Amino acid sequence: MGRMTSRRRVFRVVDGELTMRPDTLSAEEPLEIRVAGKALTITMRTPGSDFDLAAGFLVGEGIVHQGADVAGIRYCAGATVDGSNTYNIVDVVLRAGVPLPDPSLERNFYTTSSCGLCGKASLDAVRTTLRWPVTADPLAVGPEVLSGLPDALREAQKVFDRTGGLHAAGLFDRDGDLLCIREDVGRHNAVDKVVGWAAREGRLPLTGHLLMVSGRASFELVQKAAMAGIPLLAAVSAPSSLAVELAEEVGLTLVGFLRGSSMNVYTRADRLGLHDPLQLVDH
Amino acid sequence: MGRMTSRRRVFRVVDGELTMRPDTLSAEEPLEIRVAGKALTITMRTPGSDFDLAAGFLVGEGIVHQGADVAGIRYCAGATVDGSNTYNIVDVVLRAGVPLPDPSLERNFYTTSSCGLCGKASLDAVRTTLRWPVTADPLAVGPEVLSGLPDALREAQKVFDRTGGLHAAGLFDRDGDLLCIREDVGRHNAVDKVVGWAAREGRLPLTGHLLMVSGRASFELVQKAAMAGIPLLAAVSAPSSLAVELAEEVGLTLVGFLRGSSMNVYTRADRLGLHDPLQLVDH
Repeated sequence: MGRMTSRRRVFRVVDGELTMRPDTLSAEEPLEIRVAGKALTITMRTPGSDFDLAAGFLVGEGIVHQGADVAGIRYCAGATVDGSNTYNIVDVVLRAGVPLPDPSLERNFYTTSSCGLCGKASLDAVRTTLRWPVTADPLAVGPEVLSGLPDALREAQKVFDRTGGLHAAGLFDRDGDLLCIREDVGRHNAVDKVVGWAAREGRLPLTGHLLMVSGRASFELVQKAAMAGIPLLAAVSAPSSLAVELAEEVGLTLVGFLRGSSMNVYTRADRLGLHDPLQLVDH
Repeated sequence: MGRMTSRRRVFRVVDGELTMRPDTLSAEEPLEIRVAGKALTITMRTPGSDFDLAAGFLVGEGIVHQGADVAGIRYCAGATVDGSNTYNIVDVVLRAGVPLPDPSLERNFYTTSSCGLCGKASLDAVRTTLRWPVTADPLAVGPEVLSGLPDALREAQKVFDRTGGLHAAGLFDRDGDLLCIREDVGRHNAVDKVVGWAAREGRLPLTGHLLMVSGRASFELVQKAAMAGIPLLAAVSAPSSLAVELAEEVGLTLVGFLRGSSMNVYTRADRLGLHDPLQLVDH
């Protein structure tokens, strides 16, 4: 917990009145994720749950499909001049037989050589990479269960969050019980940490589970949920157009503006028992 | 404007009551930024102001220092099978004599070979890359000017934002007058678009200017402000620890939780005429 926040004396101005007071800041530090000793990515993250973050990132990229694909994770020592450990580099050893990442990995989800760079190509790339298709997931969950998620997430955040600066992601079962919550300055990191926790617990695919995030729903977050086999993603704020298109493409239920008993359901509303009287819904 | 949003019919649930209604979504599409025909990065962004985004990104990376360093920007045609233009790839041509990006660029700000990966190395990397040091900027601005920025930003956002899903960045002069506002699904893109606008207008360095962002202040946003020579960054929400450390390192005034007449000032409060009675302030 110690490294997740730091304290600092700040000037507080209210209606022209100046006071000095201590303020708690969310920690942010770079983390380099290596696979078999080779650097794959660097992300700016809140320290803590770094092994979950690494494992979850690899699930999102389609390199790891279940916890057993990871043989081990460790911090790299000796990265500094004096040989001390910064705890900002982790190395993942894959199980024998699991293919190493493609060197062109970072572009896989965004482009293909045949189609140029467009949203549709991004959707196709994710769909064809899915190991745990969610479209056939028989999850049925009432809106009243979803209504309880924001409060459950916020309640759990209170334990950790003293800074006002962290995104949260929570994994719930179909009854709305919280299984895992992670926080980070980057919302994609918070989701990676949750998915990585599940992977390391041997819980993938996350069939029948719900993922809730504290902010917006982007293409990237829908991608990460789908890659872990999660059939429903709910967000406090708005989804982007490409997030909705990807959710539709892969058959994931996407809920936005989830606040108390109100919500928008963008895709696969049938899992909430909702059917558009004006449309023939055929999933 | 058309491509910045899209419309979609969604299920709206309020207290168990179901209605169908059209919803406006923020558009999100990949953008590949090339320099002299070579791909440098791909970002998921809201279409619009793409040339500003490309120019601003290059300023943030230290490749471009002023508008004249850019000889031209264009959309790449022929990227798809049928030769049509997706408007998702831009190519930047640099002025003769401007060095091309270092192939190892993406890691420059996060690590150095001598020190391993740590926050301090990230700070040092930015400080030594600054072309327009902000520490000596004589900007003096009253808290009452800052108090007006959030409303000015929100007011200007109303013109564009019908989705609830966009981050905003606004550039102001020292009197608090708004010069440029840009919105995006990614907050780093919104800042790049503002900085790129200024670069293409021949306004760099942005000495004496204020940058306001609608969300949190991360390391990356402080870096982008400093690289453009902006001496003050204000955010509606919290800064991270590394954002505060970088602001201190480069001498930038960092303001957080700016809401109406209340705010926290984390660094270089002297520019707001604030001095800690308990500390000797010597900048």
